[in-house]
Amino acid sequence: MRLNYTNFSNMNLSKTKSNYANRGLGLENDINLTNEYYRINDIAYVYKKPTPIKLVNVDYKLGKIKEAYFDTPSTTDYNGIYKGKYIDFEAKETKLKTSFSLSNIHEHQIKHLINVKRHGAISFIIVRFVALNETYFLSTEKLEYFIKNYPRKSIPLNFFKEYGKIIKVKYSPRIDYLEVINKLYFGGNYHDEEKN
Amino acid sequence: MRLNYTNFSNMNLSKTKSNYANRGLGLENDINLTNEYYRINDIAYVYKKPTPIKLVNVDYKLGKIKEAYFDTPSTTDYNGIYKGKYIDFEAKETKLKTSFSLSNIHEHQIKHLINVKRHGAISFIIVRFVALNETYFLSTEKLEYFIKNYPRKSIPLNFFKEYGKIIKVKYSPRIDYLEVINKLYFGGNYHDEEKN
Repeated sequence: MRLNYTNFSNMNLSKTKSNYANRGLGLENDINLTNEYYRINDIAYVYKKPTPIKLVNVDYKLGKIKEAYFDTPSTTDYNGIYKGKYIDFEAKETKLKTSFSLSNIHEHQIKHLINVKRHGAISFIIVRFVALNETYFLSTEKLEYFIKNYPRKSIPLNFFKEYGKIIKVKYSPRIDYLEVINKLYFGGNYHDEEKN
Repeated sequence: MRLNYTNFSNMNLSKTKSNYANRGLGLENDINLTNEYYRINDIAYVYKKPTPIKLVNVDYKLGKIKEAYFDTPSTTDYNGIYKGKYIDFEAKETKLKTSFSLSNIHEHQIKHLINVKRHGAISFIIVRFVALNETYFLSTEKLEYFIKNYPRKSIPLNFFKEYGKIIKVKYSPRIDYLEVINKLYFGGNYHDEEKN
């Protein structure tokens, strides 16, 4: 269920970087609002990285970019810090109802997630199945497990159900992915909660 | 002393994001090369964030940006992970010989450095005095100490000499700021080294 979020009007949304970021992606806006909530409440400092741009023609006197193109990101979209831990993730929506195609994530982004995990990060992907209105947290550990053990190029919904964690869409924060992280990485008891 | 770095030709420098990033800032290029060295050698994963751009006119069919402007960054330029710790810093050059003006760093960037430090990050600034060819590491702790105790709007070179650490410019990696971090945060003995 989508709730509107009029109470967020106090937040300085105009500070959200890059108009491109607000080009109507529901999940992206949800995550931006969530990260803003975390920052305002001094819970975590996680930001979306600006979209990389390849500049071709710039009038530096005016600070005006006259010709440029979208570039391939070298890393993931989001990173930051929570409880002393480095957080790093990529978020994607899919219109499919039964699987998520790995082609949505660049191979070097997956390598990046694995690299930072190996160095102690909490890294993961967030995938929303738009048609189902279900949003999943999938750790890089499980993502790696899938890639190593399955020949398929897309992850079935059932894999998310079995190895991922559903992120409930709430009023505020919208997409409380830190709740999942608390349970998976900071000793919270996931199964008790799920019974409620 | 500046060394040229022809041996870096094997590195895929073309992958460095954003032409703007390569617009001739010596310190910025040195840090990009250093971060690339760290990644290639699986030491740390630290990236420069893309420059934020405010899009005004975009042809999404062609992926072509026809009008856009440079935006104010909401955070610092560099972040990543080293030995399980979240790393976050801003880097600036100054042409002045005796002080570094704090106006070079946005107030919200300083707040960001303080916020992430409070949550367990290793955060700092790197300042190069171009005319002296000296590059300093100054922790956010010391930066905060300066701001709280000095009415001045610029940090004297002597403050860097006393409370910062000099980063030697080497052949490879160019600007080995992790050497300073090893000593300050991972039990290395700084003073012994300095006597050598």
